[in-house]
Amino acid sequence: MKKFLDSIDSLLDASLKGFAAAHADLVGFHSEPRYLWRKQPGRPGKVVLISGGGSGHEPLHGGFVGRGMLDAACPGEIFTSPTPDQMLAAAQAVDQGSGVLFIVKNYAGDVMNFEIAAEMLESPHATVLVADDVSLPKDHSIGRRGVAGTLVVEKMVGAAAERGADLAACKTLGERVAAATASMGVALTSCTVPALGRPTFELGADEIEMGVGIHGEQGRRRMALSGASGIVATLADAIAADLPLDPARPILLHVNGFGGTPLVELYLVYDIARRYFEAKSITIARSLVGNYTTSLDMAGCSLTVTLLDEELLELWDAPVLTPALRWGC
Amino acid sequence: MKKFLDSIDSLLDASLKGFAAAHADLVGFHSEPRYLWRKQPGRPGKVVLISGGGSGHEPLHGGFVGRGMLDAACPGEIFTSPTPDQMLAAAQAVDQGSGVLFIVKNYAGDVMNFEIAAEMLESPHATVLVADDVSLPKDHSIGRRGVAGTLVVEKMVGAAAERGADLAACKTLGERVAAATASMGVALTSCTVPALGRPTFELGADEIEMGVGIHGEQGRRRMALSGASGIVATLADAIAADLPLDPARPILLHVNGFGGTPLVELYLVYDIARRYFEAKSITIARSLVGNYTTSLDMAGCSLTVTLLDEELLELWDAPVLTPALRWGC
Repeated sequence: MKKFLDSIDSLLDASLKGFAAAHADLVGFHSEPRYLWRKQPGRPGKVVLISGGGSGHEPLHGGFVGRGMLDAACPGEIFTSPTPDQMLAAAQAVDQGSGVLFIVKNYAGDVMNFEIAAEMLESPHATVLVADDVSLPKDHSIGRRGVAGTLVVEKMVGAAAERGADLAACKTLGERVAAATASMGVALTSCTVPALGRPTFELGADEIEMGVGIHGEQGRRRMALSGASGIVATLADAIAADLPLDPARPILLHVNGFGGTPLVELYLVYDIARRYFEAKSITIARSLVGNYTTSLDMAGCSLTVTLLDEELLELWDAPVLTPALRWGC
Repeated sequence: MKKFLDSIDSLLDASLKGFAAAHADLVGFHSEPRYLWRKQPGRPGKVVLISGGGSGHEPLHGGFVGRGMLDAACPGEIFTSPTPDQMLAAAQAVDQGSGVLFIVKNYAGDVMNFEIAAEMLESPHATVLVADDVSLPKDHSIGRRGVAGTLVVEKMVGAAAERGADLAACKTLGERVAAATASMGVALTSCTVPALGRPTFELGADEIEMGVGIHGEQGRRRMALSGASGIVATLADAIAADLPLDPARPILLHVNGFGGTPLVELYLVYDIARRYFEAKSITIARSLVGNYTTSLDMAGCSLTVTLLDEELLELWDAPVLTPALRWGC
């Protein structure tokens, strides 16, 4: 394992301190328990948004703390759920009295710990669950995983909360965005968790994992490495089979890198995906390409599509000022 | 080699088409000869800035085309200089009659081809050479390489040009920024150029290349992998030995990822570097952490320091709106 590392135990705190120092105008770091909080608060009485999950997916979620997105983020250990005390402390720190919305990726540990925190929280609160990974069937026993579509939920609900939407409206909107969003990913290589010191899973030199999860979970199937067009078509076919694509409804197309794949390849993937949807007469109204929901050093990427309407388009375009996403500010 | 790829021959054009489509509000792509151009022009009569170089370092340079930075960028084949016809066509396309400033990283091919283009260009023009890599001695026979500090030159001169600085002032400023900037990088792994299909250089499982170039060029020395603090101190020592650090002069600290190193590690590196300079009573006035001058999928990073003054700080803070860097807009 070749990583920048002093010790496994100090990695996360030092990295979070560095993150908060590098973005000191936007984000603060509270260390015990760990959470990142927004330094430029929204207007008094806004609904606050809190997300979190295992670390190793940076910039998700800490990179999305700021104006127009999250009010706080709770980083767990790498690929490990944060604990309820983190979520509770974060909620109490940023709560403005109008309610706390938890945005939770659908993993058993995350769901359980956010539920415990919610039960302990005395303020009004609600939860939006994100389960956008179409690699697993809709009726899968543990449910679908939450992956790169989480960014879209956080961005759109964050914009609505900034404008003064109440807790119920934020929850309804979050569920509507989540339902309109589908993702699927593919791994060309595994990733290496520092504490483990070896690749999470093994892939042959000519194999790819189609439908991989963002922690390296098994996908739909192990396949032979093929040309990019074939790989992208498989991802896009899975999304198209799941979402009611409609030429009357423009989409947001998000190509997300898992960390180890260069931009020159991600933009190739974007170009192939763009042509795929345009061939179905689907209008790509907005695009986002880059490493946003990563899996440490995994080579690979995912496609995410969100079906837009006027409201969602406007919420996507609304100003956002965070370490990792910024426009209109 | 595991990459998203249909064919070596089509990779770059498809990727550039995808890039221009994903950022259609900001950047256009001209294919024969290849250049990326700014869609939202500055005020009439502004000096235009053009850079370029081999591809594989994305988002450099195309990601920096836009308001407050470059007017055009010329992408060569991967790790290969662009050709004079690209630079000439780009210059003729964006020229506003007040002069063309070429910003050139110090590699023999780039320097020669930009010189040929400059000779063919009838409009007033000037060149700023960037040679910020302190891995090589100042009197090295081929000169020092231009690396991640190029971004700083492009950002600051871009801001000045946007405000109406004339060609001579832009050149003087660019040379001043370049002289105030020093960088050094380290590779934990090689990168793989698609057309080559195998790693550019070999590194043992416990070896690192200290002072590596952004194409995998040999550095100062091959070393044993050690803790992050030791590695970062070696990089920072080299920079501190080269730049006249002064507690009265704040710095810009840029931690640049080469592509394959996760953000959790880059922010750890930033935190170590931050503490290094703070221990020398140096004020870190501005920071930038992320993958900006990459080497395909290489794991590793570089540190860049620019000595600031009031003018340079203000130019850094000036609005910028490009695919990869944006603030204040």
